[in-house]
Amino acid sequence: MRPVALVAAGLALAGCTPVEMRRVSVPPAQALRAEPPQLRGMQYLYGSGEGAAISRQTWNAVIDHVASRLAGKDRSGVVLADDATLAAPRFVSCAGKPPAAVFDVDETVLLNLGAEADDLARGANSFDEARWDRFEKTGGASTVAAPGAAEALARLRAMGLTVIFNSNRKAANAAESRAAIEAAGLGPAVHGETLFLSGDDATGSRKDMRRARIAARFCVMALGGDQLGDFSDLFRSVGSVTARRVATGSPPVDRLWGRGWFVLPNPVYGPALAGGIDDIFPADKRWRDPADSNRKEPN
Amino acid sequence: MRPVALVAAGLALAGCTPVEMRRVSVPPAQALRAEPPQLRGMQYLYGSGEGAAISRQTWNAVIDHVASRLAGKDRSGVVLADDATLAAPRFVSCAGKPPAAVFDVDETVLLNLGAEADDLARGANSFDEARWDRFEKTGGASTVAAPGAAEALARLRAMGLTVIFNSNRKAANAAESRAAIEAAGLGPAVHGETLFLSGDDATGSRKDMRRARIAARFCVMALGGDQLGDFSDLFRSVGSVTARRVATGSPPVDRLWGRGWFVLPNPVYGPALAGGIDDIFPADKRWRDPADSNRKEPN
Repeated sequence: MRPVALVAAGLALAGCTPVEMRRVSVPPAQALRAEPPQLRGMQYLYGSGEGAAISRQTWNAVIDHVASRLAGKDRSGVVLADDATLAAPRFVSCAGKPPAAVFDVDETVLLNLGAEADDLARGANSFDEARWDRFEKTGGASTVAAPGAAEALARLRAMGLTVIFNSNRKAANAAESRAAIEAAGLGPAVHGETLFLSGDDATGSRKDMRRARIAARFCVMALGGDQLGDFSDLFRSVGSVTARRVATGSPPVDRLWGRGWFVLPNPVYGPALAGGIDDIFPADKRWRDPADSNRKEPN
Repeated sequence: MRPVALVAAGLALAGCTPVEMRRVSVPPAQALRAEPPQLRGMQYLYGSGEGAAISRQTWNAVIDHVASRLAGKDRSGVVLADDATLAAPRFVSCAGKPPAAVFDVDETVLLNLGAEADDLARGANSFDEARWDRFEKTGGASTVAAPGAAEALARLRAMGLTVIFNSNRKAANAAESRAAIEAAGLGPAVHGETLFLSGDDATGSRKDMRRARIAARFCVMALGGDQLGDFSDLFRSVGSVTARRVATGSPPVDRLWGRGWFVLPNPVYGPALAGGIDDIFPADKRWRDPADSNRKEPN
């Protein structure tokens, strides 16, 4: 195994002294700087042309999907009904309801640059609920619209849809979150009308009850988010990392992606980031470099 | 700054002894295990439901885009002409040419599970060209089709398109790459006809000349890849991390994503993963936690 390389990007993190090195009393000049584990995901999501292009691609797909459905007088909704399963999805009826689209907020329509830069600068490696609460309250000016989101939401509204946000930010911080959303050019977002939050009901971070409340009044033509919970809480009961991945690809759910259910990329945080090497890589898909004659087999 | 936490996922990496700890003679039992820097990107791309859903969403969008263009008799191509710029894109004419779609191979239609699990297990942190060459030659059985790719390519062929691969794998390994592509259910891929590789011309890893060669014969209705070079080499001459991101979002290029140019997610390797904190996060989008009364300003 080779030494962890000195990482130029890690060196760029001003004020970031690796504590694990200080612990063992290595002189600073010799200390290896480990790359922060969230750096590459942040480079991709917040810094790269590719990440921005995927975001724009997704928002363009939302616009084109809704325009195509409206043109074809197709009024099918995409919120699962109470008795639906992933194997047998049934959707809440759209009959007689005005059209809407429902989106998550964080890392969907809004990029939380302030909170993420803060995490990277501190070397934070786990979710700090109290700090995040302070960010909800005071961080609005350090957020921006996700690439393509503001233009897309404006287009949806121009097409006659009501844009509704379904977020796990706290109901107690509704005013500050509304201000952040509107300052980023994504609003309006009115709590209880076009903004639904954690604490609105007794189900915590689960979003199905909020979705049901929205779908009782609106024909939801598009759902968007960065996590599977933005589409259905049914994904929560899928057990292993592998089973969760299989669930997104099993018919008929596999056909919904990009056709009513729209996923924004987030390799920085959330339930997508789980599993060790044996969860991520099937045992029958390992490769042994023929040049490694003395290496042990992986399993 | 808090200590780097012991990471459960890191512990799952059998045989992974952190060399930077051994160097400073810390007893193994006390050694902190740093999380491998590429772990989270791999969890997202190869392991998660969200990553799989984005892949499927992209492939569904390719199908729907091509079907819609064919239905509308829209025969506009999406390969930039020689004299195009990003600010003034012009496309190679489609007149009289049969329809085609052109895709990158690695982390676009094919996931290289074998090579990536090997990188993670070894703690590799930079590209090893010789090892990758051996992977091209011997790793085919440890690859799988990206979620949704095989079905999408089959649909495109059924719609009358020729599917063509434009990859930076080596021309010298054409036979092995063809076998890998075809074994994953993505073929046919015939070198010089439907498979173009690095070494086919004198421009190395640049793909414009190969695209021009393909577009001279075919009406290319869709381009797909995980890196900006899969769409145009013009992105190579864009300087900074920030400028590269801006380039993807500037009109009229911003409208192409999901409408002829299709991006697959890759937070694991490639030019998207660049930049330090100041490149990723604009200076005016930092947040200071009001609870950090003694903390220095980031800049």
